[in-house]
Amino acid sequence: MKQLYIIGIGPGGLEHLSPAARAAIAASAELVAYPLYLDLLGSLTDGKTRHDRPLGEEIARARLALDLAASGRPTALLSSGDAGIYAMATLVFELLDREPRPVWTAVAIQVIPGISAMQAAAARVGAPLAHDFCTISLSDLLTPWETIEARLHAAGQGDFVVALYNPVSRRRTWQLVQAREILLNYRDADTPVIIARNVTRSNESIAITCLTDLEPAQVDMLTLVLIGNSETRYIRGWVYTPRGYQNKVSSTPGQAGPAVVKITK
Amino acid sequence: MKQLYIIGIGPGGLEHLSPAARAAIAASAELVAYPLYLDLLGSLTDGKTRHDRPLGEEIARARLALDLAASGRPTALLSSGDAGIYAMATLVFELLDREPRPVWTAVAIQVIPGISAMQAAAARVGAPLAHDFCTISLSDLLTPWETIEARLHAAGQGDFVVALYNPVSRRRTWQLVQAREILLNYRDADTPVIIARNVTRSNESIAITCLTDLEPAQVDMLTLVLIGNSETRYIRGWVYTPRGYQNKVSSTPGQAGPAVVKITK
Repeated sequence: MKQLYIIGIGPGGLEHLSPAARAAIAASAELVAYPLYLDLLGSLTDGKTRHDRPLGEEIARARLALDLAASGRPTALLSSGDAGIYAMATLVFELLDREPRPVWTAVAIQVIPGISAMQAAAARVGAPLAHDFCTISLSDLLTPWETIEARLHAAGQGDFVVALYNPVSRRRTWQLVQAREILLNYRDADTPVIIARNVTRSNESIAITCLTDLEPAQVDMLTLVLIGNSETRYIRGWVYTPRGYQNKVSSTPGQAGPAVVKITK
Repeated sequence: MKQLYIIGIGPGGLEHLSPAARAAIAASAELVAYPLYLDLLGSLTDGKTRHDRPLGEEIARARLALDLAASGRPTALLSSGDAGIYAMATLVFELLDREPRPVWTAVAIQVIPGISAMQAAAARVGAPLAHDFCTISLSDLLTPWETIEARLHAAGQGDFVVALYNPVSRRRTWQLVQAREILLNYRDADTPVIIARNVTRSNESIAITCLTDLEPAQVDMLTLVLIGNSETRYIRGWVYTPRGYQNKVSSTPGQAGPAVVKITK
């Protein structure tokens, strides 16, 4: 059987690489990925052919992976995080849909999920994603800004916790400012915000701030931004969003936790 | 050090249990969880004390886990999926916030993320979560229905892919009908819908249908429902949501994939 594995390797630290992902990498002869992700895998790539392609060549990478698998070599197409969330899996299906090649029909495809950056970031600070949330990519490379703007308004109106993917790039910073301003129409200035960079990697840094103080200078391409909803609370270094709006936990008068305050870890 | 691990064990199949979660279970003497989740772990629970509490006793479970950890026994509080997504982690922080006990201050807490059901379900069928999405719990036990309804409208307006958690319970089925009717105001009747039950477990079943045909009878408490957005496509057994709205993949005239059709796997 001709095999293509589409693998999410998780946020970076190998302690979050699932056994399913590890087994699929071991079973592959050809590894196709952005170079950084192959480096994160360390010795797991030993003895395999690395096809490291730069950022921006995502479609070429997906096509190459399909071609390699069709040639009979077991192939892994790797993304960081979850391969199905803002990552490579969808490009493979889009190619199969829109540019099908007869040789690809013999390829068996298996998608293996992984821990996404928002989940690793949330775990580091508590449980900010514990109730309804949405993810929005601020990259307007493939999605018109009007669509992104409408989603930010919808997120505000629906009081969703928001995970911002691709918050900035080297040349693209005003979108994050716009996102902040749109959400400030719906949320308090002191809404907790988590700025998580390189989560679970050796150079991890995590800061907790508040919505009004969120600035592009704090963020880069390796950063994920989590913005609380109207219920999200900051307590002694932790951030959590309660499960519901009618507290089952009895509130002891005078013992409520501290109000949300800005800190930087 | 007094230690409490809050662990997401993933969707069920141990091939998705992260090494970090496995190590934390191994380091724990006391395991607190809903019985089904402990059963999923098989021999990993050998030699440990099981505190299996029924559904509905979530706060008692969180309190017990904090007390056990405070007593000096390394303790794991386990959820299926991601401990931070509609799960136990937030209850621990809510207790620390609203009902703090002095003995709990000595407990070091570590949250370990896991693969959520929506990710495992998405991987099985392709890449439906590949662009902006939101999660909505249809349980109105703790959240007023008006809030849930507002979120369904926001999800429709924002054209988010929607993951429905807690779609029904034994006595609660009209909410799923309402959710379908609200989303049908914004989306085509043939929008792809994935109905995933017990994903990655021995009795997994996955069906692909369309929005207008989504019925409570197809769904139970162990089911996750994924609803595509206006761009989500069904092709030959796979479902994917394209990464953007301006296709970089060239469309070959006359070679476009088949229109969305209803199938049941």
